[in-house]
Amino acid sequence: MKNVAPTVTTGQLPASRRVWHGGELYPQIRVPMREIDLHPSAGEPSVTLYDSSGPYTDPDSEIAIDRGLPRLRAGWLAARNDVEPYEGRVVKPEDNGFAEGARLTPEFPVRHAPLRASSGKAVTQMAYARAGLITPEMEFVAIRENLARKEGTNAVERDGRSWGAEIPDVITPEFVRDEVARGRAIIPSNINHPEAEPMVIGRNFLVKINANIGNSAVTSSMAEEVEKMVWATRWGADTVMDLSTGRNIHNIREWIVRNSPVPIGTVPLYQALEKVGGVATDLSWKVFRDTLIEQAEQGVDYFTIHAGVRLHMIPMTVDRVTGIVSRGGSIMAKWCLHHHKESFLYEHFEEICDIARAYDVSFSLGDGLRPGSIADANDAAQFAELETLGELTRIAWAKDCQVMIEGPGHVPMHKIKENMDKQLTACGEAPFYTLGPLTTDIAPGYDHITSGIGAAMIGWFGTAMLCYVTPKEHLGLPNRDDVKTGVITYKIAAHAADLAKGHPAARLRDDALSRARFEFRWEDQFNLSLDPETARSMHDETLPKEAHKVAHFCSMCGPKFCSMRISHDIRAEAQKEGMARMSEKFRKGGELYVPVGEVE
Amino acid sequence: MKNVAPTVTTGQLPASRRVWHGGELYPQIRVPMREIDLHPSAGEPSVTLYDSSGPYTDPDSEIAIDRGLPRLRAGWLAARNDVEPYEGRVVKPEDNGFAEGARLTPEFPVRHAPLRASSGKAVTQMAYARAGLITPEMEFVAIRENLARKEGTNAVERDGRSWGAEIPDVITPEFVRDEVARGRAIIPSNINHPEAEPMVIGRNFLVKINANIGNSAVTSSMAEEVEKMVWATRWGADTVMDLSTGRNIHNIREWIVRNSPVPIGTVPLYQALEKVGGVATDLSWKVFRDTLIEQAEQGVDYFTIHAGVRLHMIPMTVDRVTGIVSRGGSIMAKWCLHHHKESFLYEHFEEICDIARAYDVSFSLGDGLRPGSIADANDAAQFAELETLGELTRIAWAKDCQVMIEGPGHVPMHKIKENMDKQLTACGEAPFYTLGPLTTDIAPGYDHITSGIGAAMIGWFGTAMLCYVTPKEHLGLPNRDDVKTGVITYKIAAHAADLAKGHPAARLRDDALSRARFEFRWEDQFNLSLDPETARSMHDETLPKEAHKVAHFCSMCGPKFCSMRISHDIRAEAQKEGMARMSEKFRKGGELYVPVGEVE
Repeated sequence: MKNVAPTVTTGQLPASRRVWHGGELYPQIRVPMREIDLHPSAGEPSVTLYDSSGPYTDPDSEIAIDRGLPRLRAGWLAARNDVEPYEGRVVKPEDNGFAEGARLTPEFPVRHAPLRASSGKAVTQMAYARAGLITPEMEFVAIRENLARKEGTNAVERDGRSWGAEIPDVITPEFVRDEVARGRAIIPSNINHPEAEPMVIGRNFLVKINANIGNSAVTSSMAEEVEKMVWATRWGADTVMDLSTGRNIHNIREWIVRNSPVPIGTVPLYQALEKVGGVATDLSWKVFRDTLIEQAEQGVDYFTIHAGVRLHMIPMTVDRVTGIVSRGGSIMAKWCLHHHKESFLYEHFEEICDIARAYDVSFSLGDGLRPGSIADANDAAQFAELETLGELTRIAWAKDCQVMIEGPGHVPMHKIKENMDKQLTACGEAPFYTLGPLTTDIAPGYDHITSGIGAAMIGWFGTAMLCYVTPKEHLGLPNRDDVKTGVITYKIAAHAADLAKGHPAARLRDDALSRARFEFRWEDQFNLSLDPETARSMHDETLPKEAHKVAHFCSMCGPKFCSMRISHDIRAEAQKEGMARMSEKFRKGGELYVPVGEVE
Repeated sequence: MKNVAPTVTTGQLPASRRVWHGGELYPQIRVPMREIDLHPSAGEPSVTLYDSSGPYTDPDSEIAIDRGLPRLRAGWLAARNDVEPYEGRVVKPEDNGFAEGARLTPEFPVRHAPLRASSGKAVTQMAYARAGLITPEMEFVAIRENLARKEGTNAVERDGRSWGAEIPDVITPEFVRDEVARGRAIIPSNINHPEAEPMVIGRNFLVKINANIGNSAVTSSMAEEVEKMVWATRWGADTVMDLSTGRNIHNIREWIVRNSPVPIGTVPLYQALEKVGGVATDLSWKVFRDTLIEQAEQGVDYFTIHAGVRLHMIPMTVDRVTGIVSRGGSIMAKWCLHHHKESFLYEHFEEICDIARAYDVSFSLGDGLRPGSIADANDAAQFAELETLGELTRIAWAKDCQVMIEGPGHVPMHKIKENMDKQLTACGEAPFYTLGPLTTDIAPGYDHITSGIGAAMIGWFGTAMLCYVTPKEHLGLPNRDDVKTGVITYKIAAHAADLAKGHPAARLRDDALSRARFEFRWEDQFNLSLDPETARSMHDETLPKEAHKVAHFCSMCGPKFCSMRISHDIRAEAQKEGMARMSEKFRKGGELYVPVGEVE
């Protein structure tokens, strides 16, 4: 089987080291972070960053895609003594769209017996949190969120507007437990995906981003998708959704999950539809339920469930400019209308919860009626569904299931805050997870940007996770470059949101990079940036010589016009004479210097 | 001289025609617009767009770079009978940085005697506006801003939040006059740049964008810069700033101005510094004044003047993370400090106004102390200077000079509104013109995006013109691709701002494109987009065949998962039966349909 194992991108980013921070409640846990070393002339400590890239950037880690990642959480799960291995569902031909022979993606070579909760127990992080238990997962994410800051040290002046978010100076495991218990945060962590490094999604934590991958009936293959997953996490994707819709869905997903250091989300309806040959009206609760079990056993960490699309809402969409643009939403609407029945997802939602609680699959309640154009933003259909998502949230919480809520879509800037506020109210502060939103419809080819604007804003207002949009949105399937562009754009949006919320650790990186910029430490400036390769290559386009990497001028302006160089002259002059004395002198001479307080 | 004429990009964008709308007060004026024809199946009229591209996209226009563009406004100027031609200043060797021989950029082949106001008159649009005169320039921009909408027709429901902007349903010439008279809008239109098509900058009009070009000591040439100017306006730049700093500044600028259909801005200090060999402390009022005259005679439409940097403010910058990052600001700060004197720009500002009013050069009062990092945003230095810019605005207005105010820079999202509001108050609603702002420092290589976020927001809040930032910001000089990326990104930001402000014509394009998307009119979707070439090529990467341009499914999802296709099925089903009757039926049957108003 060796020959089918795809190769993926490994190795560290420049000047970076993967380091670990140990637990206190659970000394065995090791939380990965990335440290960037600065040039000795900086006289500054290394900068600690959140690291979503998993073992792929660890030089001591032996990567073998056909074996999968180490099963980090296996021991933690065993220690809780509330799950049992079992035979599991048998893979059926329809799971892979009846692909066979050379068209069948090979099975993943290693099979682990799936786990499920013993005798009806809830094995969700929410259940533990409500029972007062701090799990290793909770301590892990607490350490991870702190980015090495500690109580009483690394104190930063809080500067931001949080719009009701309450991010503490330091995240404690107990704070994580409390947020999860209240439903304000989730830790997507299927017990069958022990390879993943725990992460938290909630508005009192760092804003997260998701990258979508997946093959389609039109294009793509397993090797490409595994690499896209690794590639996306390398640049900062916190979760990855596998939105595959063609053949081989089951087998491709197994390769992805076994090798993913981040939670994997899916839309089970897509696979269910493949199982019934693409005929939406042939869908049934039976085939959908079977798909949920199949994916829960594989280790999918969160399911998008479009249970909020109800029959009575469909008439609200017929006068829209762009109708229903969610694939899942349109499939369910068609089913409801054809059968003249209420959605089977809505009607069986409690049973769906029972499955989710047995594996700790989190819900991402789908916004099947999200607006697909500026014209349709914040309309009656969208908000009617949002109310239903709130109702479903309460049902899920009653079953100890973890929930987040999906949001739009296309929304002009002046309607973003209203959407966010309605979500908080309707869904009891369950984390919001939005696609963009795109702030205009007129720029296909640049929708990472139209949506990056909306994403930054809604992240500031309280969205916990931002689903990326690539330049190919509306046009085609993203390739590797598009995935990177989408991820970097969304890291920008998430970070801009963290800054604006006043997250206590967010500005450290900005300040370190700005100091590097001001002191002409070009290498540090590249290394501290979200994409060191691009920054360096753009610099080299204008000033390719190595000598220019230590040049005390900027390549835009040349030496004579470099404001920063002149600023250093000014600073030096000020230090020589002392600003206070200069001020004194000139006040006597002609009041040219006026101390700050006296400026009119 | 033929052989030195550069070639530039000409020809229309796909499916587009350049059309003209005539004046009523001035029947001789012809206002250009772009009309995009839609596929006959749409059953929709063509879409009218603002067109900044000038004669280059007009197939009937004969382009000859070495002759320059037609002198559109020459007759309008003559008719006002308040200007006179004169010999003008003799070009000196230092104007071109002492370049000679093969290193000297050839002179522009045609010389027009410069005009200036007769006997001390103010020939500014503001002076005319205050005198109650509606100029052809004012009627031109009124027509241009309306995008073919007319009183009583094309009525759109106003939807937006304007933050105090008051955009009327239809722009009348009298409204333009009033806005210019009040100083809330400017029409940059040097009497020596009659080639430019008038445009207006003010928060009660469409949000504009500026593109920076210019050679530097490090790189670039005349042919490249002229093409960059044409290229930038092709994609939507409303004004262009020539920020050249190397040799040949005078001659390159002449080529640019003579061929520019949009207003040209400069920072005269850059050329003045070249004239004194790059030694900031050797600058003087004399050399600066000489440079103003030189550039006013050439036809520069607006000058960035860093007169707000005063000696007493310099101590406020020494503890900043990034000091002074404006080139002009740092040069003036150094000068002030070295000579222990107040800025000669501040001290001679009235004389500067006297020059500007004789040619109608508008001011862009420079923000020499703008923040260069998140850490320095909205600090004492920045706001002290802003107050001074307000003081200078009042001086300029007293001289009938047109003024806009430059703004930052680097500002986290939560401080953008504060900055905008302070500007409106301090500067009496003079138009704000901001560089971004960048909402984080951590993404060199992607600063078009970090700043596009801030630009969209501050545009919404009231900024009248957005200065683009390219991906090369902080790293190097933008090439042609970077210029396009910067312009498109800023067109997105400006348009998103127009939408959010509730501009009465903004959403027409979004809606037309969204209808095309929903109806699978792929060609219309490409043609209506900001960058048809990129949209088309991205689509073709996944689905290259011509047949797919009429395919009734989206290339992301393939046929089975196309939500829009399913939406059409739903709509068809609804139309067949009639939603009202279906609703009736199901209410009786089991209350599955609930009319909108009754949803809980």
